[in-house]
Amino acid sequence: MTALATALTPSHLRLLEALFPGDGLVTRPEEMAVFGADSSRRSALPWAVVRPRSEEQIVELLRWAEAEKMPLVPRLRGTGMSGGAVPAFGGVVVSTLWLNRVIDIDASDFCAEVEPGVVTAEFQALTQKQKLFYPPDPASLKISTLGGNVSTCAGGMRAVKYGVTRDYVLGVRAVLPGGKICDAGGRTHKNVVGLDLTRLFVGSCGTLGIFTKLTLKLLPLPESSATVLAAFGSLRGALEGAHNVFRAGILPTALEFMDAVACRGIAQIRDVPWPKDTTQAVLLLKIDGSASALPGDLDRLTRALSQANPLCLLKGLGPGEEEPLWEIRRLVSPAAFQLGPDKLGEDVAVPRGKTVEAVEGFQAIGAENDVHVACYGHLGDGNIHVNIIYDAGDDGQRARAKACKEAVFRLTLSLGGTISGEHGTGITKGPYVSWQLSETERSLMAGIKQVFDPSGILNPGKGWV
Amino acid sequence: MTALATALTPSHLRLLEALFPGDGLVTRPEEMAVFGADSSRRSALPWAVVRPRSEEQIVELLRWAEAEKMPLVPRLRGTGMSGGAVPAFGGVVVSTLWLNRVIDIDASDFCAEVEPGVVTAEFQALTQKQKLFYPPDPASLKISTLGGNVSTCAGGMRAVKYGVTRDYVLGVRAVLPGGKICDAGGRTHKNVVGLDLTRLFVGSCGTLGIFTKLTLKLLPLPESSATVLAAFGSLRGALEGAHNVFRAGILPTALEFMDAVACRGIAQIRDVPWPKDTTQAVLLLKIDGSASALPGDLDRLTRALSQANPLCLLKGLGPGEEEPLWEIRRLVSPAAFQLGPDKLGEDVAVPRGKTVEAVEGFQAIGAENDVHVACYGHLGDGNIHVNIIYDAGDDGQRARAKACKEAVFRLTLSLGGTISGEHGTGITKGPYVSWQLSETERSLMAGIKQVFDPSGILNPGKGWV
Repeated sequence: MTALATALTPSHLRLLEALFPGDGLVTRPEEMAVFGADSSRRSALPWAVVRPRSEEQIVELLRWAEAEKMPLVPRLRGTGMSGGAVPAFGGVVVSTLWLNRVIDIDASDFCAEVEPGVVTAEFQALTQKQKLFYPPDPASLKISTLGGNVSTCAGGMRAVKYGVTRDYVLGVRAVLPGGKICDAGGRTHKNVVGLDLTRLFVGSCGTLGIFTKLTLKLLPLPESSATVLAAFGSLRGALEGAHNVFRAGILPTALEFMDAVACRGIAQIRDVPWPKDTTQAVLLLKIDGSASALPGDLDRLTRALSQANPLCLLKGLGPGEEEPLWEIRRLVSPAAFQLGPDKLGEDVAVPRGKTVEAVEGFQAIGAENDVHVACYGHLGDGNIHVNIIYDAGDDGQRARAKACKEAVFRLTLSLGGTISGEHGTGITKGPYVSWQLSETERSLMAGIKQVFDPSGILNPGKGWV
Repeated sequence: MTALATALTPSHLRLLEALFPGDGLVTRPEEMAVFGADSSRRSALPWAVVRPRSEEQIVELLRWAEAEKMPLVPRLRGTGMSGGAVPAFGGVVVSTLWLNRVIDIDASDFCAEVEPGVVTAEFQALTQKQKLFYPPDPASLKISTLGGNVSTCAGGMRAVKYGVTRDYVLGVRAVLPGGKICDAGGRTHKNVVGLDLTRLFVGSCGTLGIFTKLTLKLLPLPESSATVLAAFGSLRGALEGAHNVFRAGILPTALEFMDAVACRGIAQIRDVPWPKDTTQAVLLLKIDGSASALPGDLDRLTRALSQANPLCLLKGLGPGEEEPLWEIRRLVSPAAFQLGPDKLGEDVAVPRGKTVEAVEGFQAIGAENDVHVACYGHLGDGNIHVNIIYDAGDDGQRARAKACKEAVFRLTLSLGGTISGEHGTGITKGPYVSWQLSETERSLMAGIKQVFDPSGILNPGKGWV
């Protein structure tokens, strides 16, 4: 493989100026800084930032970049948690935020065509107007984009019932290094012609191509929903409650949990509806369906939970009653900072039945390393957000937090889990990928990468290699 | 690329005898014939058939085959409709039917680990005993295997609500040419570490590796179900009925239809519940959910259908009442033979809203070519089974049937559809793949194939190349 360019030359810059006139090219460091960071709190200064307005510009860019061996780092809103969009190994950042048209939302085909820069929540609002439903709901949905969601295979709370972003991508149009366009998949809900390039693009973190259009699958919008919050005196009690729900044949839309540390953090910033002294875990469940079915299904859900003897149980039928309960859930992440100024936010996943063992283990690892560990998240998927809270100004705490993170990964893998359920590996988890993936798997991935991007110009150094 | 072996030599045979003792090796033509055919009615005699009992034997076989450039054609029950398992281009058939253990069905993890030779319906019966649910239901499920289903990304009637086989595969363990083992994915419901090798294996038709273990996702078993059959005086009336159902926010488990030709075929072999003279299309819908929700949801479903003025509407609540209605649906395929001795069974899919246009077009194509065309299938996915019925003994009819098939493909593609929604391309649709996939897509697929199988020994000549 030819070596990549290590800097932008004056002639490179002149080409970029011609291709991206006006504010399409950003080169002043103070303006570029924001394009070099993401929600991982890592950052690096791009060599330049280009902001295409059309697919044609992206085609030209990829032709040039392939010829010049110029590293490119695709980017949208930078809400990723693992540094996937940070140009940590240099290169030109390509922001496709201006490709933000909703091309089509079709209530007959039950699909939509969008450009990558469309904000997820705005798209969902548009679909709802047509009584359509795009289920994926990463926590960032109000600010993140569909292109970013597809690029990371974003998850979310509704994954228990509805699956993740992958399950709603019918087609991906992407420009490849060299400027060729790959138009994988399409508007049909079933399609088995050839290898599944569409899903290969999903979760590929900008390493295979730059998306210019996505075709998404939509569902009919459920008529109604209901939410239950239940507090338990033990983590095992909470998991028994969750298990009873599944055993009753109920597939909840969402099944979230918060451990004792997370509950205590929230109690420090607002009134909470659970008994503060005895609560060790809280479950939050949502169900949806027809208006006529919901009251009966809600009864069935509360009966299943009640068999596990919750300390308290609150119900909400319909968005007005449900919203206050979900507001509590959204406070977990900010509440973690009540316990310390910095955190490592991991998102491991374990087989669903291993959740108690995992959370008890993570708590013990926190205790051993003398750092706070708050666990919460998507119990229904075994996808646990492990917040390791510490003070980065303290060398000892910083080292202990890192040791804690590594122990969390080791325990996760020993339970048959994965080091990332929905955030991706980016740069923060890059060094640990080989703990999970075998040499055979990594070499297949490297081989596939080379088929799409023979010079390795797209988002170098990220992921699995 | 080195040329593949063109025959088995005596020394090859001695190696296979040593590796597959006793009935593990089949070489007598009369015994091999059954291993050379599938449900496409195509066949070719294998050079030999091997029947491994263990992964170790498969590893040895793939080491040897890579060294000898020996073509291998993986095979399970041979229920494929497109000749994917037929050794049309020569080679040794590898039947993994004896790898048929259900390793694990876990009601806590909501997943199962199985070997590829497990029969789908038998697996589903085992999961149901634990109140668990494996939704994919290809029409062949009583005789086809999970390995075959994953290899083709099999669809089925429940795909409208539950998706296809792809959506239930969490992990694939496969032996690659050369004998390395790739263990992609695992028991977690979410996992975004690295490129998605798991779903790349799904639908790859034995071209990337030989499966030895599959990890499948399970759901809680729905408590109850109901079925409605509605007959309409026009195809457009039926589609209006289906559209009303989705508009009412109902996501049916299954949404099947049969056109006038299919209805007439069934009426020739049994009593039918619809008015024979006026029925132009029949819808068959299934919903599922909790026992308390079903009666209300069934009312809502019948109200939505009634707005499209059906000629008749029959309801069934619970398996006992539903079964007679589904029995009618299962007769469509055999009933087609009332109209002629041979058929081409295509399985195109179009965007859901294009179904009427497609079916009307297919009927017109049949009329133009003077052959019977019966359309039926998965309306909810836009996945239409087009049965072109003719007499293969008549040269003119045979030529017209082929012309009809090609016109069906052209119309499908012009509507944004795919030439295969669930059967795969195999040999019967191989020549038409380039009508759908661009040179860029095909060359990416060929590149990926080469990463897994550099000598091209696995199922050569099938698919997309």
